[in-house]
Amino acid sequence: MLGKLRTTFAASAVSLDLMDTIERRIDFYFDFSSPYSYIASEWIEALAARHARTVRWHAILLGATFQAAELRTPVSHPIKRDYTMLDFERSARFEGVPLTMPEPFPIATQNAARVFWWLHAQDPERATAWAHHALRAYFTRGVNLSDSTALKALAAEFGLVPQEAEAVWVDPLWKARLKQANDAAIACGTFGAPYFMIDGEPFWGNDRRAQMERWLETGPF
Amino acid sequence: MLGKLRTTFAASAVSLDLMDTIERRIDFYFDFSSPYSYIASEWIEALAARHARTVRWHAILLGATFQAAELRTPVSHPIKRDYTMLDFERSARFEGVPLTMPEPFPIATQNAARVFWWLHAQDPERATAWAHHALRAYFTRGVNLSDSTALKALAAEFGLVPQEAEAVWVDPLWKARLKQANDAAIACGTFGAPYFMIDGEPFWGNDRRAQMERWLETGPF
Repeated sequence: MLGKLRTTFAASAVSLDLMDTIERRIDFYFDFSSPYSYIASEWIEALAARHARTVRWHAILLGATFQAAELRTPVSHPIKRDYTMLDFERSARFEGVPLTMPEPFPIATQNAARVFWWLHAQDPERATAWAHHALRAYFTRGVNLSDSTALKALAAEFGLVPQEAEAVWVDPLWKARLKQANDAAIACGTFGAPYFMIDGEPFWGNDRRAQMERWLETGPF
Repeated sequence: MLGKLRTTFAASAVSLDLMDTIERRIDFYFDFSSPYSYIASEWIEALAARHARTVRWHAILLGATFQAAELRTPVSHPIKRDYTMLDFERSARFEGVPLTMPEPFPIATQNAARVFWWLHAQDPERATAWAHHALRAYFTRGVNLSDSTALKALAAEFGLVPQEAEAVWVDPLWKARLKQANDAAIACGTFGAPYFMIDGEPFWGNDRRAQMERWLETGPF
């Protein structure tokens, strides 16, 4: 009897631990070509840490989510384009994040994202470090992540073997892994980036930071 | 000579006064069917007053700006619709503004907007009072502003003669005035609402409040 109780208790404890881990997580969906994602990538870890949360990073392709939601990138719309280009840089200055809009913009980011998921399978923290490295390279130094040569050089700078990185982004396995990530993001409501999930609640946009902060402080409001 | 100087000085003074008036203004573009516009309408006057500014209200039709920018309402997009419906109410709670999403939504608002411009020609403050009255009616009591009978009743409640209000919204003069307002809004970069202009700087969205506050406090950043 005692044995059975102990087993039940142990099972509950494991289950509670798991619940805690899930509840204390912030899911962060980003695209390597999204300026607002880049800005958010610079504050999300500190925000999470202040509330004893961890961040689970998800590299995705905005194009896939736009297609699912029948959207186009904001910079493809007349009139809205001019405002958006201005707002990218102003929002970065507002958050104290260095950003110089790169040329070309936007770019295809599937290769950088596949390297992310390859690293993630080995060590999520190393994948996060790669995300920071590549986002900063594109948005502060204009390193074109869609250019194979530039991306290989960046991978080398990060400490990877460039040929190995290239082998990853042409590998059907990592293509499939990225597609899976896109599908999972769309399934949980992602239609743009950055997109966040906290306790099952979605938050879209760098500009939802204050609402996320309140949610983390006080719970649902 | 003294006379000429005095004239020049007087002209400069007038010109400076005019400059001051323009510079101390916040232009606020809104649509009567826009929840984010409604939320912003509840804080814009206090924000302006804290910085010794006045607010110039512009009733416009979002549909006209969407057409110019090749956009559709966010609630017409799959996936994005669900998030947006949730975010309307959460953003209102975040700002402490009472909001219950009305049915039907969105609605045609040209009649309410034409009454706005008719009142504006007589007394801009009365037009602002009408804007508050109609926005609150739709977003807290579900009064359908696109329904002639409901709008006439609302006009009566506001102190207008209902038949006079109806005569306004079918009058080509006020149709043309609203069209002029839409065209002017698009010409200065409006593609959504709420949209604000401060010192020639555009701000789009209820969620740009913090950036507007910084701009008003410190100037360009």
